[in-house]
Amino acid sequence: MCGIFGIEDQADAATFTYLGLYALQHRGQESSGIVSWDGEALRVRRGMGQIADVFDEGTLARLAGRRALGHTRYSTSGTSVLDNAQPIVANTSMGSLALVHNGNLVNAVSERRRLESGGSIFQTSSDTEVILHLMARNPRRDLVESLLVALQRVRGAYSLILLTPGGLIAARDPHGFRPLVLGALADGGVCFASESCAFDLLGARLVREIEPGEVVVARGGELESYRMSQLREPARCLFELVYFARPDSTVFGESVSQARLAMGAQLAREAPADADVVVPVPDSGLFSALGYARESGLPLEFGLIRNHYVGRTFIEPKQAIRHFGVKVKLNPVRQLIAGQRVVLVDDSIVRGTTSPKIVKMVRDGGAREVHVRISCPPTAWPCYYGIDMPTRQELVAANNSVEEIRGFIDADSLAYLSLEGLSQSLPSGQGGHCTACWSGSYPEPVTGADRRQAELFPQLKEVEP
Amino acid sequence: MCGIFGIEDQADAATFTYLGLYALQHRGQESSGIVSWDGEALRVRRGMGQIADVFDEGTLARLAGRRALGHTRYSTSGTSVLDNAQPIVANTSMGSLALVHNGNLVNAVSERRRLESGGSIFQTSSDTEVILHLMARNPRRDLVESLLVALQRVRGAYSLILLTPGGLIAARDPHGFRPLVLGALADGGVCFASESCAFDLLGARLVREIEPGEVVVARGGELESYRMSQLREPARCLFELVYFARPDSTVFGESVSQARLAMGAQLAREAPADADVVVPVPDSGLFSALGYARESGLPLEFGLIRNHYVGRTFIEPKQAIRHFGVKVKLNPVRQLIAGQRVVLVDDSIVRGTTSPKIVKMVRDGGAREVHVRISCPPTAWPCYYGIDMPTRQELVAANNSVEEIRGFIDADSLAYLSLEGLSQSLPSGQGGHCTACWSGSYPEPVTGADRRQAELFPQLKEVEP
Amino acid sequence: MCGIFGIEDQADAATFTYLGLYALQHRGQESSGIVSWDGEALRVRRGMGQIADVFDEGTLARLAGRRALGHTRYSTSGTSVLDNAQPIVANTSMGSLALVHNGNLVNAVSERRRLESGGSIFQTSSDTEVILHLMARNPRRDLVESLLVALQRVRGAYSLILLTPGGLIAARDPHGFRPLVLGALADGGVCFASESCAFDLLGARLVREIEPGEVVVARGGELESYRMSQLREPARCLFELVYFARPDSTVFGESVSQARLAMGAQLAREAPADADVVVPVPDSGLFSALGYARESGLPLEFGLIRNHYVGRTFIEPKQAIRHFGVKVKLNPVRQLIAGQRVVLVDDSIVRGTTSPKIVKMVRDGGAREVHVRISCPPTAWPCYYGIDMPTRQELVAANNSVEEIRGFIDADSLAYLSLEGLSQSLPSGQGGHCTACWSGSYPEPVTGADRRQAELFPQLKEVEP
Amino acid sequence: MCGIFGIEDQADAATFTYLGLYALQHRGQESSGIVSWDGEALRVRRGMGQIADVFDEGTLARLAGRRALGHTRYSTSGTSVLDNAQPIVANTSMGSLALVHNGNLVNAVSERRRLESGGSIFQTSSDTEVILHLMARNPRRDLVESLLVALQRVRGAYSLILLTPGGLIAARDPHGFRPLVLGALADGGVCFASESCAFDLLGARLVREIEPGEVVVARGGELESYRMSQLREPARCLFELVYFARPDSTVFGESVSQARLAMGAQLAREAPADADVVVPVPDSGLFSALGYARESGLPLEFGLIRNHYVGRTFIEPKQAIRHFGVKVKLNPVRQLIAGQRVVLVDDSIVRGTTSPKIVKMVRDGGAREVHVRISCPPTAWPCYYGIDMPTRQELVAANNSVEEIRGFIDADSLAYLSLEGLSQSLPSGQGGHCTACWSGSYPEPVTGADRRQAELFPQLKEVEP
Repeated sequence: MCGIFGIEDQADAATFTYLGLYALQHRGQESSGIVSWDGEALRVRRGMGQIADVFDEGTLARLAGRRALGHTRYSTSGTSVLDNAQPIVANTSMGSLALVHNGNLVNAVSERRRLESGGSIFQTSSDTEVILHLMARNPRRDLVESLLVALQRVRGAYSLILLTPGGLIAARDPHGFRPLVLGALADGGVCFASESCAFDLLGARLVREIEPGEVVVARGGELESYRMSQLREPARCLFELVYFARPDSTVFGESVSQARLAMGAQLAREAPADADVVVPVPDSGLFSALGYARESGLPLEFGLIRNHYVGRTFIEPKQAIRHFGVKVKLNPVRQLIAGQRVVLVDDSIVRGTTSPKIVKMVRDGGAREVHVRISCPPTAWPCYYGIDMPTRQELVAANNSVEEIRGFIDADSLAYLSLEGLSQSLPSGQGGHCTACWSGSYPEPVTGADRRQAELFPQLKEVEP
Repeated sequence: MCGIFGIEDQADAATFTYLGLYALQHRGQESSGIVSWDGEALRVRRGMGQIADVFDEGTLARLAGRRALGHTRYSTSGTSVLDNAQPIVANTSMGSLALVHNGNLVNAVSERRRLESGGSIFQTSSDTEVILHLMARNPRRDLVESLLVALQRVRGAYSLILLTPGGLIAARDPHGFRPLVLGALADGGVCFASESCAFDLLGARLVREIEPGEVVVARGGELESYRMSQLREPARCLFELVYFARPDSTVFGESVSQARLAMGAQLAREAPADADVVVPVPDSGLFSALGYARESGLPLEFGLIRNHYVGRTFIEPKQAIRHFGVKVKLNPVRQLIAGQRVVLVDDSIVRGTTSPKIVKMVRDGGAREVHVRISCPPTAWPCYYGIDMPTRQELVAANNSVEEIRGFIDADSLAYLSLEGLSQSLPSGQGGHCTACWSGSYPEPVTGADRRQAELFPQLKEVEP
Repeated sequence: MCGIFGIEDQADAATFTYLGLYALQHRGQESSGIVSWDGEALRVRRGMGQIADVFDEGTLARLAGRRALGHTRYSTSGTSVLDNAQPIVANTSMGSLALVHNGNLVNAVSERRRLESGGSIFQTSSDTEVILHLMARNPRRDLVESLLVALQRVRGAYSLILLTPGGLIAARDPHGFRPLVLGALADGGVCFASESCAFDLLGARLVREIEPGEVVVARGGELESYRMSQLREPARCLFELVYFARPDSTVFGESVSQARLAMGAQLAREAPADADVVVPVPDSGLFSALGYARESGLPLEFGLIRNHYVGRTFIEPKQAIRHFGVKVKLNPVRQLIAGQRVVLVDDSIVRGTTSPKIVKMVRDGGAREVHVRISCPPTAWPCYYGIDMPTRQELVAANNSVEEIRGFIDADSLAYLSLEGLSQSLPSGQGGHCTACWSGSYPEPVTGADRRQAELFPQLKEVEP
Repeated sequence: MCGIFGIEDQADAATFTYLGLYALQHRGQESSGIVSWDGEALRVRRGMGQIADVFDEGTLARLAGRRALGHTRYSTSGTSVLDNAQPIVANTSMGSLALVHNGNLVNAVSERRRLESGGSIFQTSSDTEVILHLMARNPRRDLVESLLVALQRVRGAYSLILLTPGGLIAARDPHGFRPLVLGALADGGVCFASESCAFDLLGARLVREIEPGEVVVARGGELESYRMSQLREPARCLFELVYFARPDSTVFGESVSQARLAMGAQLAREAPADADVVVPVPDSGLFSALGYARESGLPLEFGLIRNHYVGRTFIEPKQAIRHFGVKVKLNPVRQLIAGQRVVLVDDSIVRGTTSPKIVKMVRDGGAREVHVRISCPPTAWPCYYGIDMPTRQELVAANNSVEEIRGFIDADSLAYLSLEGLSQSLPSGQGGHCTACWSGSYPEPVTGADRRQAELFPQLKEVEP
């Protein structure tokens, strides 16, 4: 996963981008980068770590210009590597370009193979670079044309922003897997972001979603919209609404907080529990727990407290401490759960490694019964469109029944929200979503060779000092 | 404010201390330090920034030994300075000592003057160092005796932990202003901390509060308890329960979360509002808002979202952004508050500079009415016992009526919890608290010369690289 | 200027490369980089600053493998930029490649233009990258063939080392402008370096010079030699012997120290001085001063002392200090020069900005007369083959007679070594050198468009944190 | 060893101090510190590493004020520790003080014991702190009086500079073991330094040596001189002239370079060699080798080249490289020494561990014979006055005859300069020196308890991040 942001025709553009990325940091905080265009050259800074670690005032000042874009990334591999850090920049016959990209191309491997045998040199193992090479191979006076030609060759999920000497170009794949929204700045400039919460911080106004298959060009305050020729059914990622997006964001035209409240309420209707209190797993289960509590009439209790400083490098003691991994993040409030029959509301169970520890923690806190309720269906299929997920073998719901999972996490009861219930919870009532991770029905086919692409390529490992 | 932690007879003592401080980081995150005793020498590391910035695995490994103590500090001055960073260490005729201290001595100036004219050299402008000098001047074979003699000379608030070549000594002033708790480790060791949440992370058990006027010595797993000869009325700081302590902590024998729920409920009884929803100011108003909602029957809504990455260095844009300062921390969820009459529950109004911005933010988010409810009485008097507060001139409640403040923050109504209501909210029903910041009744008198002590001394400014 | 080093089939290859670069650091110390091949992937680390600043033990350990190459660079632009830092790495259809390059291609601009219009994407504005793209465009099973085809298209100065998955390839342009030597390691491995002093530190044996127009492939301990088809007259850079190379090196088959001693002696014969002492400008004038002293019979005096810590970042006082810039580097020893008629021996006068300050410093130190002797002819033409020199306008000898320069630097007399005298000073008696910077006779023609290539390209400015 | 510098009444005082320390860096480069007085408070920055690593422009700007002092230290212990880093600062009843000190007190242990039992708290294990405590115990209106009283209690070597709110005070022990000179700045200010080379860089004029037993007070441009009451024979350290001081310095009123030339000449008279060339061990043997060459009539050859980047952290290969330790510093020039009978001139042999390696290196470089000549007598006794030397057991000359050492270092012949010859080499003809390390005759007695003082005290180990 990652968050992207771009801004056009705004003083202090790099600092605005920094702030936009700051608001999007829940989408990835392991590396980040900003590129600005100072009128003559690209200026770039990429680094490992949170935005606040990578950028300081001096760095932002050196990223001069009124046009910028940025990227914040959740590293999928265990080790931290800088090599694939975005934005990706390139000098081409059309000038200097920079690109940020959220998503995953499903035919990147075959396209890259083809380009390499034609003499193209790749700097990264990222699929983002494929798009730049396709453009360079098809140079056009009008860069939008060059981009449209390039995008005809790629399939999969991409919400992208391209910085050119003449402006910004934002594009979203024909399925519209990943979100991308358009904003208007107070002084006349334009911005693009993965989620609307980035606009709120900047005092920008959410104008609308970039449509699936749409390409929007911003030059100064002027906007032009293009349509890709390829047509596909919309397939917006529902997991964004369940888990990934910030609750104060609007994505796909839906209020995330309202959607989650409705999921919780629907979950209470589908899977009531004979219990005393509803406890959210903070912070992701907060809204669905409130929805559940309201619908069920049970009192909400903040029975688990989250340590807000987590997310940074953290040193474990050599000395074993029981359930240490979970304790660093969560702590039960014994006085609120002791002797209670607890409904524990969370957003999902993926590998099934954390849930047993949380249930145990709640029991150790004195709960008499623990009833786990999950605000989406069982996650049984991997995502090929940009959500980092384990292989099917590692997904606990791929190989176990709900009852088996219940036993495994040692809950008194376990229930998931149904796919129908989930769909009905969307405030807009609108359809056209990707449900592949629950249903196994993939909107865009993935062939074997492309499945684990990154590992197929010779790699370049940038060594951190 | 600050958080202190000490541990005795535990493998990996420095890493345990690091974890303890990690859990206490809400009490201060601008500088931190750890001292360990490796059997022959003190090892020390102090630095600016959060625990995770100051310590890495290598540093902790070099802080060898089975005894350690640590400190995390909220810097009271605007600029960051390292000079007064704790633990304070000293070589004396009784051996090497290290001291951490939470609180504030009210006669530090006069004592320091006296010591200096006797030839003592001070390294810091901290009142903590006074205690070490008093000990050095009264050396005893038994270090506890030396400490008891020293503490007879000082007045004010101190919860302290002293590391000696022979063990740890924890002490709390006769009023017991600041909290200090005793814990038992799984393997037989002993620990001390400002709040019990530090024990939870370590898998340690909360044994009990250190009593006001008590001195506890830990040597290996052995504990001895001493009483100071000076007698005072207990005066535990109520503001710890209202705001400062973590909700999952037990301090002064009270469950913080239960106390806050009760404050919210009592506030609803004392100051009901004709409104549609209850919205907490996160995170400090969360529990009292839930208490208010339950008692009033109004629905709770998470109408303000907190950005969890705040607290780090943050760069402001040169370009003005409206209400920027508050937006970095909070964002309203328009869909949840638009058209609603909102009860906004917060813990306190100090200077009155933030509240108007939050009220405005809620109104901009579409709220029809905003009724502010505060879970303690008006803060009208400065604290001399260790809570960092502005001067009386800057306290908005010192110079304005509740109605004037309401007008100033532009709320439709404003109400505070009464002092009686606050006292009744404590789960234990126990009395003996300091209420000086609300009542102006100071348990320990402060003379003029000692009021602004730090500034009276020649200072040493450690320059950061 | 820069220094390059490569090593094949040697345990600890990155650390050996680090040491090799360490010995070559006089050729550039503003940025450095090392790439290793771990058997599966390239590992790379590049950074600003001296070798010891960029690499530590951990970094070197992560640069795993038995094959590596490295580069140390003298940044030609005033500002420090990381963008063009070498080694340059690339993923191609022939696998992962890394390249280091000392020299300057004179047709880089036209070649790059041609490649870009064919769809190639450039990451840097360095001419080194052109060679990689030419290879990628002409992939061959045998990488040497691909390299030979690529090198047929480029003209100018290049001593390069290419790291491939199968081995190292070293190549030197048909003129052999820049040095490159081959060494044998004690354990059977092979190494390449700009100068032989890098071998001494590693305990490696200097085998021979790589010939102009030769390509040497090292796979394990096996060596193969190829010849480029293009034939040119040898044109080894004489300025390497006069100034750039380390005195303990052998380059172009010549002992640098012996060459400099001979230059000094010849200078004494050509331009004797009626003086009392010979004083070298340390360290570059040391050997020629000794040669001058011996031949003239005048005593050598170390009348100028060099500060050995210079070369690092250095902070100037805001407060003006007279002749500060020169004083940081040099200090006169008054007792040795007061009242003396001094022959001051230096290697060259380029812009003519430093020499007047040194002459003044020697006069301030009490010298009665100052006779400047330079161990090469007047530098009147810019170098297009890799020595960083100012434009012709800035070269003091391009626009002034020797007598005018003498007046300008305020010497009592000034003399340069003649071109014939310089040639006769070479120990080997061998010819075939480039003398363009003194004679204006350029072995390889440079067309206008290619003269200032770097600035013609859109640039990417990596912003340092 | 260390270098000290102080400056009074000069704009940009901290930057001038930085420059002064820069020139004194040959006296120690493992840690450094600067303190300035901004008119109200001391500002301090101390750190590990060379001056240029510890200070940048921002840091120097924050060290505001027109009065400053600094220290650069050669760490005697193997591990790098920050705890004892100077300047040492203290708040006393006389105000804030800072102190730098070069030398070693021989009764520090007993004094410290006495002070500690009186209640003094020590921050360091440095003997410098003893002086501050003695002052604090004897406060006087006039700080000079307080210092004079304090110095009456200490014995040993000290050249010190004290910064007070009113000015600078420089003092030198009655023997005058270590150097200290007084300089006049162009704008009317005053400076003190270990050696005069620091003045040259600043454009300051060397006024004179501070006399043994003299105390000089600088307030603004005004100077006052005081005499200590205790009287001793002067005992200036001759090893400063042989090895430690920079050749362009004047210390003890002697020109270092002239002294070394004379030592070399005298050595040639005392110990001629039947040889072909004279080769200095750079850089310390440079001047004595030139003196030897001149007197003997043998030609000087720069047959050993020093790597100028040494002195920084340096990473050794795990793979063994023959004679690696010496090769990092020195490289022979085969062409200059092959087949020659070489006189190798060096300043001293201490442990005897390096000399055999250099002799071997010269032999490997092809020398037919190697005759080692040392420009001082055999070093057979440890120094208690501030030169870091091994114990007597480790001094090769303490336990071996010259002939045994010759065999040990595998030289064809070995000779030392006689003590008489050394004394006669001083340009001034003046006597009154300490020769203890050669003669065993100690000017100031050292009692057993004080011999290894640092290790007797409880230590505080500051852990580096």
